[in-house]
Amino acid sequence: MADPRKSTLVLVAERAGVSIASVSRVMNGLPASERVTERVRAAAAELGYVPDATARSLKVGRTEQIALAVADVGNPVYVGMMREISRVVTKAGYRLVLSSTGIDPKDQIDLLVSLNRGYADGLIMSPLRVPEELGTQLRSSRLPIVIIGSLPPGAELDNVRADSVAGMALAVDHLAAQGRTRIAFVNGPVDTVPGAARRDGYLKALAARGIEDRTQVDARDFTYQAGLKAAATLLEKGTPDAIVCANDLLAIAALNVATRRGLKIPDDVAIVGMDDTDIADLANPAITSVDLGATRRARTAARLLLRRLEKPDAPVRQVVIEPTLTVRGSSTKEENL
Amino acid sequence: MADPRKSTLVLVAERAGVSIASVSRVMNGLPASERVTERVRAAAAELGYVPDATARSLKVGRTEQIALAVADVGNPVYVGMMREISRVVTKAGYRLVLSSTGIDPKDQIDLLVSLNRGYADGLIMSPLRVPEELGTQLRSSRLPIVIIGSLPPGAELDNVRADSVAGMALAVDHLAAQGRTRIAFVNGPVDTVPGAARRDGYLKALAARGIEDRTQVDARDFTYQAGLKAAATLLEKGTPDAIVCANDLLAIAALNVATRRGLKIPDDVAIVGMDDTDIADLANPAITSVDLGATRRARTAARLLLRRLEKPDAPVRQVVIEPTLTVRGSSTKEENL
Repeated sequence: MADPRKSTLVLVAERAGVSIASVSRVMNGLPASERVTERVRAAAAELGYVPDATARSLKVGRTEQIALAVADVGNPVYVGMMREISRVVTKAGYRLVLSSTGIDPKDQIDLLVSLNRGYADGLIMSPLRVPEELGTQLRSSRLPIVIIGSLPPGAELDNVRADSVAGMALAVDHLAAQGRTRIAFVNGPVDTVPGAARRDGYLKALAARGIEDRTQVDARDFTYQAGLKAAATLLEKGTPDAIVCANDLLAIAALNVATRRGLKIPDDVAIVGMDDTDIADLANPAITSVDLGATRRARTAARLLLRRLEKPDAPVRQVVIEPTLTVRGSSTKEENL
Repeated sequence: MADPRKSTLVLVAERAGVSIASVSRVMNGLPASERVTERVRAAAAELGYVPDATARSLKVGRTEQIALAVADVGNPVYVGMMREISRVVTKAGYRLVLSSTGIDPKDQIDLLVSLNRGYADGLIMSPLRVPEELGTQLRSSRLPIVIIGSLPPGAELDNVRADSVAGMALAVDHLAAQGRTRIAFVNGPVDTVPGAARRDGYLKALAARGIEDRTQVDARDFTYQAGLKAAATLLEKGTPDAIVCANDLLAIAALNVATRRGLKIPDDVAIVGMDDTDIADLANPAITSVDLGATRRARTAARLLLRRLEKPDAPVRQVVIEPTLTVRGSSTKEENL
């Protein structure tokens, strides 16, 4: 086994019987004689020290990496997406590079700039907010990009999105079918892409069914803690017979706040979440949730990116994933499940 | 803006006024005249098309990437660790590359082999199982590696680990202080590193307090679904007045199974989880949990790896993170919190 304390350059130089400067020249693609070049390459190969990935990436202009940019590595929706994207791209011989951009759109722009310096072959991005400047960066990027979520205006990119409007309709239909008439809504911030879409969906779904009773509270963000506060505010206004929530964390928060106030779930208040993440099952009762197809969106996005890498000139595809509803104990009596 | 449909090679060749073959030669480090080499480099730089990361990695033998290998990207403990490691290494100018190895030790070995081909500068690994063969691979790896968890025998590596034995003692002490005497245990598989350590801790903690009543059930794995089954099996054997669980998912499962059987938490049965993940708060009541210092372990591991990259000859460090206990409603009445 080679001495790990010596650098690759030193070891290759020793084996090839050339100077360290020569090894460096060859590895940097600077001019060197054919004899030296070949000795260096042979020595590096014998030592198993050819930085294969790097050499290959220079060779074919590929890094064999795909970057995934999400706002929060810890959000259960992203966790599921990450797992699925990792599965698909690994099978195709790529590694997944993770970038947690935070909620600040500036981070996403910084990321794009640094990606363009070339450490990944493609990017899958799920932006929470889509400011003008991000659109500009996306349009001028030379990297293949697939967006999960809404496209910024004017960006012609492969795109996969959920249909939250249809998703809210599923939730409201289900609750109406259970005889619920006062269907309140705990949303996240409406200045985000998902927040705005979910609000539209809620208003349209109620309007379509002629339900006039509307109560909405917007949580400060899409977290459990923010949900506790929003649900408490909502229940101060009166007790609805159903609460639709913009994601499962908010739904579990609403369920716990309602339960602690002595309300029975689902008898007094039915609760429906959104995203159908792993945690929907952890609640007691388990949360009925609209599956906006996070796993399918992730899989489709990964496949669109692989296709784009394969065929850079392929026509742009924009895919909408249809939602489904998973009914659990939070909206219907266990015996009806 | 450059036409994104043309490959880098084509665009650089056009700008440099040389053949595509020449660009390819230069980029591959193959012999080329100085004139051609310089034209290609200048053109690539002007177009912003120098693959900086790749070029730099050849130059200084660095990829500026750190790999993180975990058994399950979706496990809440790993999610928290990932977030923290990402934060620390990003600040130091590295990207985090994610590898989900699955529960199969063979995956970890495959990963090590492919890492040695050179796409990351260092590896942080948290193996669930530590077979002989993994030890062999770790010893012969030329990559700096930090292990979170137990080291395989004979491996002299930087290492951060939790003290599950002390963690179980904290849990048992807390429950004994609440007057609990029949403290049962829902563990994960005992052929895993955490499963074996937690069982030892449980047995030692009970022995230290002279508690002879012992009931243990091992869940098939560390998941919620496996926990539901294990908790049901446990409660078939009789009703303990406390249940310690090997992680928070198992604890929430035990809490829900007990609640559905009409048991009051914490009055009839107190429940304590382990890892103190975000989901501990989602349960109703929230789960008291032993914090084995996942965030601190992650941070320490990231710092140890950065130090090792900086000083390859630094003495090996092995750090133990002390556990703490976060008391919540599942083990004590809310008014005592």
